[in-house]
Amino acid sequence: MKRKLALAAGLTTAGFMLYASPASAEAVDTSNPQVFVDNAFIVICAALVIFMQAGFAMVEAGLTRSKNAAHMMLKNLLDFVVGAVGFSLIGYHIAFNGNQWIGFEWLWTGPLESATVAPNLTMPVHLLFNLGFAAAAATIVSGAVAERVQFRAYFLYAFFIAGLLYPIVVSWVWGGGWLTEMGFIDLAGSAVVHITGGAAALTGVLILGPRIGRFDESGNSIPIPGHNVPLAILGVFILTIGWFGFNAGSVLTADLTIGWVATMTAISAGAGGIGATVASWITLKTPDVTLIGNGVLGGLVAVTAGALNVSLIGALMIGFVAGVLAANGVLLLDRFGLDDPVGAIPVHLFGGLWGTIAVGIFADPSTTAEGVAGLLYGGSPSLLITQITGATAIFGFITVCTAVMFSVMKATNTLRVTAAEEMIGLDIAEHATPAYNDDYVDYSNVDVNDHDEFDAFLDELIAAE
Amino acid sequence: MKRKLALAAGLTTAGFMLYASPASAEAVDTSNPQVFVDNAFIVICAALVIFMQAGFAMVEAGLTRSKNAAHMMLKNLLDFVVGAVGFSLIGYHIAFNGNQWIGFEWLWTGPLESATVAPNLTMPVHLLFNLGFAAAAATIVSGAVAERVQFRAYFLYAFFIAGLLYPIVVSWVWGGGWLTEMGFIDLAGSAVVHITGGAAALTGVLILGPRIGRFDESGNSIPIPGHNVPLAILGVFILTIGWFGFNAGSVLTADLTIGWVATMTAISAGAGGIGATVASWITLKTPDVTLIGNGVLGGLVAVTAGALNVSLIGALMIGFVAGVLAANGVLLLDRFGLDDPVGAIPVHLFGGLWGTIAVGIFADPSTTAEGVAGLLYGGSPSLLITQITGATAIFGFITVCTAVMFSVMKATNTLRVTAAEEMIGLDIAEHATPAYNDDYVDYSNVDVNDHDEFDAFLDELIAAE
Amino acid sequence: MKRKLALAAGLTTAGFMLYASPASAEAVDTSNPQVFVDNAFIVICAALVIFMQAGFAMVEAGLTRSKNAAHMMLKNLLDFVVGAVGFSLIGYHIAFNGNQWIGFEWLWTGPLESATVAPNLTMPVHLLFNLGFAAAAATIVSGAVAERVQFRAYFLYAFFIAGLLYPIVVSWVWGGGWLTEMGFIDLAGSAVVHITGGAAALTGVLILGPRIGRFDESGNSIPIPGHNVPLAILGVFILTIGWFGFNAGSVLTADLTIGWVATMTAISAGAGGIGATVASWITLKTPDVTLIGNGVLGGLVAVTAGALNVSLIGALMIGFVAGVLAANGVLLLDRFGLDDPVGAIPVHLFGGLWGTIAVGIFADPSTTAEGVAGLLYGGSPSLLITQITGATAIFGFITVCTAVMFSVMKATNTLRVTAAEEMIGLDIAEHATPAYNDDYVDYSNVDVNDHDEFDAFLDELIAAE
Repeated sequence: MKRKLALAAGLTTAGFMLYASPASAEAVDTSNPQVFVDNAFIVICAALVIFMQAGFAMVEAGLTRSKNAAHMMLKNLLDFVVGAVGFSLIGYHIAFNGNQWIGFEWLWTGPLESATVAPNLTMPVHLLFNLGFAAAAATIVSGAVAERVQFRAYFLYAFFIAGLLYPIVVSWVWGGGWLTEMGFIDLAGSAVVHITGGAAALTGVLILGPRIGRFDESGNSIPIPGHNVPLAILGVFILTIGWFGFNAGSVLTADLTIGWVATMTAISAGAGGIGATVASWITLKTPDVTLIGNGVLGGLVAVTAGALNVSLIGALMIGFVAGVLAANGVLLLDRFGLDDPVGAIPVHLFGGLWGTIAVGIFADPSTTAEGVAGLLYGGSPSLLITQITGATAIFGFITVCTAVMFSVMKATNTLRVTAAEEMIGLDIAEHATPAYNDDYVDYSNVDVNDHDEFDAFLDELIAAE
Repeated sequence: MKRKLALAAGLTTAGFMLYASPASAEAVDTSNPQVFVDNAFIVICAALVIFMQAGFAMVEAGLTRSKNAAHMMLKNLLDFVVGAVGFSLIGYHIAFNGNQWIGFEWLWTGPLESATVAPNLTMPVHLLFNLGFAAAAATIVSGAVAERVQFRAYFLYAFFIAGLLYPIVVSWVWGGGWLTEMGFIDLAGSAVVHITGGAAALTGVLILGPRIGRFDESGNSIPIPGHNVPLAILGVFILTIGWFGFNAGSVLTADLTIGWVATMTAISAGAGGIGATVASWITLKTPDVTLIGNGVLGGLVAVTAGALNVSLIGALMIGFVAGVLAANGVLLLDRFGLDDPVGAIPVHLFGGLWGTIAVGIFADPSTTAEGVAGLLYGGSPSLLITQITGATAIFGFITVCTAVMFSVMKATNTLRVTAAEEMIGLDIAEHATPAYNDDYVDYSNVDVNDHDEFDAFLDELIAAE
Repeated sequence: MKRKLALAAGLTTAGFMLYASPASAEAVDTSNPQVFVDNAFIVICAALVIFMQAGFAMVEAGLTRSKNAAHMMLKNLLDFVVGAVGFSLIGYHIAFNGNQWIGFEWLWTGPLESATVAPNLTMPVHLLFNLGFAAAAATIVSGAVAERVQFRAYFLYAFFIAGLLYPIVVSWVWGGGWLTEMGFIDLAGSAVVHITGGAAALTGVLILGPRIGRFDESGNSIPIPGHNVPLAILGVFILTIGWFGFNAGSVLTADLTIGWVATMTAISAGAGGIGATVASWITLKTPDVTLIGNGVLGGLVAVTAGALNVSLIGALMIGFVAGVLAANGVLLLDRFGLDDPVGAIPVHLFGGLWGTIAVGIFADPSTTAEGVAGLLYGGSPSLLITQITGATAIFGFITVCTAVMFSVMKATNTLRVTAAEEMIGLDIAEHATPAYNDDYVDYSNVDVNDHDEFDAFLDELIAAE
């Protein structure tokens, strides 16, 4: 049975690979001064994208319990590690050279060869920029399945998603594959990164089940608050900053459209924050701090597909709706008994689906190269159908593949920790490393400026050791 | 009475607007390769400036109490939200196109139009860069009035400052207005951003009054320490990094002066740290950690006006004095019974005033385009008078307008929370979200490598749930 | 005796200075458009390098105890302060103009003069970029000697290292000195920064002795866990991001090799994480969170010398070995009774020595200008000897000089705090500023949505004050 599942997964994967077309490398034109601007700009953007990993780490650690905080940080650090090594050696070559499964070729192509998809960039720059995206796709899952997944399970799914599934989706959209040919628009990955990560997150949550105590016997939701809200909001800030590299860098050349892309990104993030403020104030009767944080992230996720092609009004509407979805989507999950500790599904899946489809409503394709001329929106029925097709295909492909993957892991007992481990927390159960060790000395009753009193206090303290 | 105050505020505002001159947009010259360098550089600088918002959040949350930490983080996140939406839609157009009050025009001008003030930048890049400045001006206030202001009050003043008052000041100095014409020098906003924010902070503190328990019945100061010094110092680091984008980006073109600007920024920050170390060691008999952090920030604030025009010795002296002001300014506030929880007034108002005026002492106007040739300092009496005029005008305008604003809010009971809310903390009173939820499991007496002992401990723990 | 030691230090220093050759400044060629790309790129890289200081602060504060956390943050902030002021005024001129001890000359050379070593950069840009490196060299020491060094001792050694010793080493390698002439390869400082910092750290640890309670009477290791693992891992992320500026910026021009350098940096960091994961899982039977964090840092340190000259396989092997060294090096220190609270010696000294020597094994000197053509590795016996010579010389020079420095400080009672101060923690003993002040209000038993219950709770709280 297990073998059959694994075989099915392999065949599905191989089948979809056929749709990816090969890309050949050629030399960068060093006589063009713009080439140097582009490579420098994208190296900086790549650093910003990799910084997003720190943002994800803060959000996920902050919104979960302190007994799992070191574990959450480690998983996010390892997403970068898996991205840097696994994606560089394997995934990148699936993504952009569909006919090569293992990409050691690039060892001897040298740094002056470029990917066809980005003629001005050297291949390492293009790889470095894409490596952070692969890590992000894997990270989205780790937030949704947090506090109950085995550490070795994490390794398996992170490698499978960042090294195989995500690269296949990239090959369809950015690698010259069938969605490229259909005219599907996804500038920086509302679909490629966020639907991929979000669909895998939803599948994982469905197969894993909720954390102990998250719902009562009648199925009523009992929220488990995160342990450190400031950490989580710091993560939102870091993700926002990194997103400027994520979206503007996805133009893959520092032409004059990067300003439009970056500004629409900021405006949609802001509108997402407003949407979530309004939504949480209405639904929960209070401006909820973490939901507003998620609203900003939802706005960022949703504008990522269309930032180059939508007008300011489009960006405002895309962000606002995504913010509402991010805030109120949690209630929907609660109703179905789904436990997503950090709200990864509302932010990335709902935001990603909405943002991908919204391109069909708001995009102005007549001005894709130099900006958006339309006052309000463009869009077209045919583009809308293309966007829905792409979003559905990616959602379906990832759901099927990760359902097989998580089911195999569940059947082989490599998915969920034991109840005892869950209770004590993964920091100690998996790593023997508590996140926090407090040796706090209480000096609140000591006058530190009174030398006699201070010395007496010190003597007492030393005697106590 | 309240209506009269509101009317007065409106008229004052409208009156000052007449001094702003209109600016017209024209196309960027894409045949100039420098244009692409400039836009890419300023997009990255804009990301750095927006990152400063995270720094302000860390400083303000770290230097206040844990019962208000989630609230402080949210306010700083919403400053970015208000900046991104409110400043983009309204404030920017007041700032740089004085004749348009609502700037929807830019929806159809498209991304290739530039602001006259920055001929190489597309309009969205120029907007994005300025948007973070507006957020910063609003944020400075939120630190000073922390722990006692209503959440809805925050919304009102943030929008009023970022969307209206700050843009008017910008129009005077950077938008081609009367201070531009007078030759007032303020590269990146010691006056425009920091006197504006600092004057509003001082007015707010005066009208709000101190936190409960901050002064005893005889008016003696009883310091209320912040809850997390490492968070606050992380904020200082983040602000420092962002400041390189703030100051060097304010050249608005990546010419060779950006290096001078960035280096003077670093040197003044360092000198501010030394000034505060010396000052706090003398005054408090100890190198006070948070005052030294504020000293670095003071050095950054003060050099912001003149970074392009002062020599290295000038930067050292500007930073050192600002560091002393940032550290010892707190004592001055204490004497007057003013409660500024994070030291925003000494850092931003005192530092901003000093830095603006110091340009008149240290600037070397003969070399503003390519650097500073003078060994020690230039300056001139006429420039000094111009700088004092500008600083005074901005301080006066903001003080009057925000005095009206805060008075109206006070009179209508939309300013201060109740004593009960202040006691329980704004996290729970305003957002029903405690910043910290500790489920800390104490394993300090368990040998995690002794399997029997560990299992017994686990069993006990599960039984206890 | 003390005077003799000081004299010996002075003479040693002066002697080594003779090996540094002078460099003269000339004007940047502004007709070359690449000049503007280069200066903009290096200013951004400099900001990233200075951001590393925040990463060091997080790692060092997170891995030590909460009673020293404010002190650790301050020391790292002051490293930036000392770097910005001390290195700018003195160290930079020793490093790159061996014949000038005090470099006030640059006050009148103006910003358009460049250092010969970086013909496209203006002098302030080159200085700013290098200033963060000096701060890093000093910071490495502060981690190793943490929790027991006097604050004034810190000032002395930070200034001595960042202002004098480190600049001398720079003059040998990057300033046109004897190691430059030998063909020694150290792109961004595996030797210059990390062996320097690591050797000083080892010397400091040897002379200081361990913290109270770190080893029992039989010399067995009793680990003292850090107080905040998430802070430490955030620091690892920040350091990783900053390292892209550190290594890619060290090309000193934004040519097409920066992509290769940045990508090898990411891959070695990833391989370091894998190496430490494997090593800690084997040695400690668990994937240790902080050791894996140190493994990533070890990978970064080690690839820093050769990032421009090694193939992908070389970067993988360099990183993996450095990760193993970073994780298991701690055990080696334990065996010798050496107490390095943050693992600075395994990361920086072991990683730096390995990375410097590894260039002699993996470098492909035939393609240093445009990348690496070799499939596996190049290297040569003569290059290997050069690398070992350089590593040994730097290690020996720093060990001797800092041994004298720390011995003088020990003999004059300006090195270690008293036992009482160590017990109570340096936050309160040195700064009268506890890092954390918790006024945590326990609302866990209150239903905040039940207005009567909530009001009663508030009344109780206010009554208790």
